[in-house]
Amino acid sequence: MMGLEKTTRMNYLFDFYQELLTPKQRSYMMLYYLDDHSLGEIAEAYDITRQAVYDNIRRTEAMLEEYEAKLQLFGKFQKRQQLVAEFEKEPIADERVQEFLNQLKELD
Amino acid sequence: MMGLEKTTRMNYLFDFYQELLTPKQRSYMMLYYLDDHSLGEIAEAYDITRQAVYDNIRRTEAMLEEYEAKLQLFGKFQKRQQLVAEFEKEPIADERVQEFLNQLKELD
Repeated sequence: MMGLEKTTRMNYLFDFYQELLTPKQRSYMMLYYLDDHSLGEIAEAYDITRQAVYDNIRRTEAMLEEYEAKLQLFGKFQKRQQLVAEFEKEPIADERVQEFLNQLKELD
Repeated sequence: MMGLEKTTRMNYLFDFYQELLTPKQRSYMMLYYLDDHSLGEIAEAYDITRQAVYDNIRRTEAMLEEYEAKLQLFGKFQKRQQLVAEFEKEPIADERVQEFLNQLKELD
């Protein structure tokens, strides 16, 4: 997995597990994945080597994957999304069903 | 919070976050909360002091509460349960709706 697919996955995993990261891990990940800064730019901003930024980000990615392997927050979220999408292909004309689906989505 | 209410909550939190605990933490919690053994019994089985078991379980409880404060797996599960229960009070006679609800419950 690389490129856009990996970026999308990391953005999701970060979204689900960022509370479990340290402030520094969170900063690097946000700059790299959300704000699309380069390793060199982050290194310069924090006055550390490019290699140090790279290592930190790789370790954080591994941590996020480990959390996902254990808790499957992203996996279950995707399955709920698929379930709802499948169900909504043939909409049911009932206000209560619509309201229920809306509230369900808000929880995710 | 104490007694039955705390036991129920700890059983749920353990269920959601046990993958994040060490094998030892998991063993003590299972013996104490799921199998209802006393601190003394656990201490004897592991040949350690009652105080050591007590401290370990208290620390684990605090960890579980910390994970819940950060990730809210139990809180969101409860909200989904409430949402479904509320919705099912007035059942909708549609097979697709029933099937959807069943699949949704299986994910939790």
